[in-house]
Amino acid sequence: MTPNQLSARAAALAIAGKRLSSVELIEACLARIAKREPTLQAWAFLHRDLALKQARARDAEAPSGPLHGVPVGVKDIIDTADMPTEHGSPMYKGHRPVIDAACVALVRRAGGIILGKTVTTEFASSPPAKTRNPINPNHTPGGSSSGSAAAVADFQIPIGFGTQTAGSVVRPAAYCGLVGFKPSYGTYAVSGMKLLAHGVDTLGTLTRNVDDTLLMWEVLHAGPAGAARLRERPRIGLCHTPFWSEAQKPAVEAFEAASRRLAGTGFEIEVLEMPSWFETLREDHRVIAEYESARNTAFECAPERFHLHSPTMQAARERGWKLSPERYAAARAAQLRAQQEYAALTANFDALMMPSAPGEAPEGLATTGDPVFNRLTSLLHVPAICLTVMKGPHGLPVGVQFVGAVGNDRAVLELARRAEACFA
Amino acid sequence: MTPNQLSARAAALAIAGKRLSSVELIEACLARIAKREPTLQAWAFLHRDLALKQARARDAEAPSGPLHGVPVGVKDIIDTADMPTEHGSPMYKGHRPVIDAACVALVRRAGGIILGKTVTTEFASSPPAKTRNPINPNHTPGGSSSGSAAAVADFQIPIGFGTQTAGSVVRPAAYCGLVGFKPSYGTYAVSGMKLLAHGVDTLGTLTRNVDDTLLMWEVLHAGPAGAARLRERPRIGLCHTPFWSEAQKPAVEAFEAASRRLAGTGFEIEVLEMPSWFETLREDHRVIAEYESARNTAFECAPERFHLHSPTMQAARERGWKLSPERYAAARAAQLRAQQEYAALTANFDALMMPSAPGEAPEGLATTGDPVFNRLTSLLHVPAICLTVMKGPHGLPVGVQFVGAVGNDRAVLELARRAEACFA
Repeated sequence: MTPNQLSARAAALAIAGKRLSSVELIEACLARIAKREPTLQAWAFLHRDLALKQARARDAEAPSGPLHGVPVGVKDIIDTADMPTEHGSPMYKGHRPVIDAACVALVRRAGGIILGKTVTTEFASSPPAKTRNPINPNHTPGGSSSGSAAAVADFQIPIGFGTQTAGSVVRPAAYCGLVGFKPSYGTYAVSGMKLLAHGVDTLGTLTRNVDDTLLMWEVLHAGPAGAARLRERPRIGLCHTPFWSEAQKPAVEAFEAASRRLAGTGFEIEVLEMPSWFETLREDHRVIAEYESARNTAFECAPERFHLHSPTMQAARERGWKLSPERYAAARAAQLRAQQEYAALTANFDALMMPSAPGEAPEGLATTGDPVFNRLTSLLHVPAICLTVMKGPHGLPVGVQFVGAVGNDRAVLELARRAEACFA
Repeated sequence: MTPNQLSARAAALAIAGKRLSSVELIEACLARIAKREPTLQAWAFLHRDLALKQARARDAEAPSGPLHGVPVGVKDIIDTADMPTEHGSPMYKGHRPVIDAACVALVRRAGGIILGKTVTTEFASSPPAKTRNPINPNHTPGGSSSGSAAAVADFQIPIGFGTQTAGSVVRPAAYCGLVGFKPSYGTYAVSGMKLLAHGVDTLGTLTRNVDDTLLMWEVLHAGPAGAARLRERPRIGLCHTPFWSEAQKPAVEAFEAASRRLAGTGFEIEVLEMPSWFETLREDHRVIAEYESARNTAFECAPERFHLHSPTMQAARERGWKLSPERYAAARAAQLRAQQEYAALTANFDALMMPSAPGEAPEGLATTGDPVFNRLTSLLHVPAICLTVMKGPHGLPVGVQFVGAVGNDRAVLELARRAEACFA
């Protein structure tokens, strides 16, 4: 095993135990990137020299935090004081913020090293970026956190930051065989992350196992995770969602396989049906996302800059501007009502299980896939974490996501850790 | 009446009707500022030449938006592409963002002119700034939106932006005799506003009447406000809050006077008692604000910059860092529970009425006053708007605030407009 294949936790422990240097780790990551970047194109900006300089500094110090000497990739809509932040848009070519986003500063506070900026789709939206799926480069890695997903799945870095408005953390994680975690809305500090739809945007992490997700929980809270409150025999609600007809055969098979395995290993499983009116929340999510994104990008939408958006992006912004404040208010009212109903409906469960994506990563780069199974969790503000269950017919990963109640993140993480062992 | 004394709506109408030019309006505002700034110190940065240049451009165009040619003041924790943004901190001396915050770009989109940046307390927190109360300069204007409150109350501008984490919009508005409006959390786009406590921070407006508050609602939503759904005979719940013992005599008298006048003019009035456990929410709010502010300012708290905070600010950040993730999670759980209880409790009311502040603006500049009556509305994410009811013994304004349910902002604005007429 080369150092770049280590989990973040294992790497940090090896560095703390002097069995590995941060320089060796960073060099192994850079070597992997050098080999694979021409094919995968996961990076918007790499700061090799600065990373190695920081690694040498970390190696000369006593370990001071849980990420001491470990590299992290940062989605390129998150500000960094020492690297460009281009938001996947020509409008921001060479743009250099002078302040680190909160999550970046928290990584540094924990001793971590920012290796570079990972490719995002244009303003973290649907127009695909250049990045390819490391498992099969003829397929999309998903989006909008495309670069973080590809780089982590390809063993170039152990941890990548993503952000989710619709399905931008969980979907690319699912397509690349990763653990993607979107916590409850507002759980992680978002200062310095470009806000598009402020009512749903959530910072999340992409890692190769649940333990590293938990490590990032500690880093981003700057404190110990504490104990998770979980039923002795955890109760999982099998939830087809109102969108089950869009689950393709591999997703259905993964869902059924996951149910069987969980039922056989100490979990209590019960089918849970969502109210049928939740089907309309898909459209309410779109309204909130497009309405808020237009207003949050009022500067970018000014006449002198608007043409620097891609045509697809221009159309999305124009739809957003055209939505009436009353339609927006109605969507927010539906969101609030759904949050209340969801909380009551799921009170007797530790988590629900849902498909994480409609199936394997689609072929080609024309689309980053459909966030149909993610819009709901974003709108509801609930924690969601995806795990791989099996390979599909194209050899690409297919899995499920565990979805909790607002604030129940620690229990969902613990449940996911146990489920991970049972899926392995 | 000089042009600077006009409301924003009246000024925009006069400009559209060619009875007033934007240049005349801006010149009148600048003249007022020139006269009063040495005493009041409301401005962190004034861009006289740019404002006049933009006014000339507006005067040469056909009116294109509801703020055409009207000046607005922007609290100095909100980014502007053409002026510094210093966050009330020496750490950001001369700092120049290159992007307008969403609210700034929306003002420009509506034809408005950013006259300058108004003084904020250090990172919109409790250490007082230099600004004085225009009604009596020996008193605080309140904070943290100190400059916006003073400048609007002193007829230097018709509209100022504020932000509220605890009571930073409503309290200074109350102390300066203004209409301060904090909408439901997430109602106004916050991109480019410095996020401190992301779970409660809300953009708000300070104006001299409710109609201008409604005008800014239209500007910030970039669309017509639509009709408000209000009961034929609006029902107001008189709510002493669990903090009534901290209401000083003038605040109690204003509350009682307001109740009498509303009861005499077509409102249905009923006493509403909050659950006594809501008293503990004051501490939960403090936990959330200090915990999140520490993490959102991880960059500013890095060892090489931390000393640039004032000692009071350093202590607040240190308290925030020391709070455990579990204590924070408990505070957020209490917030969620309180939001649900509040919604059920207030379902039969159009709004609640509460004190807006403990009393008149305190004498001196040693404190910006106590946000005890505002923390709850910030924590609950509910809309709050304050109105002046009477003068206190020092000749300073005292009033009440109307507080709605999440998403019920339009009804609260309409109710406030009617109450304003009844208090006049």
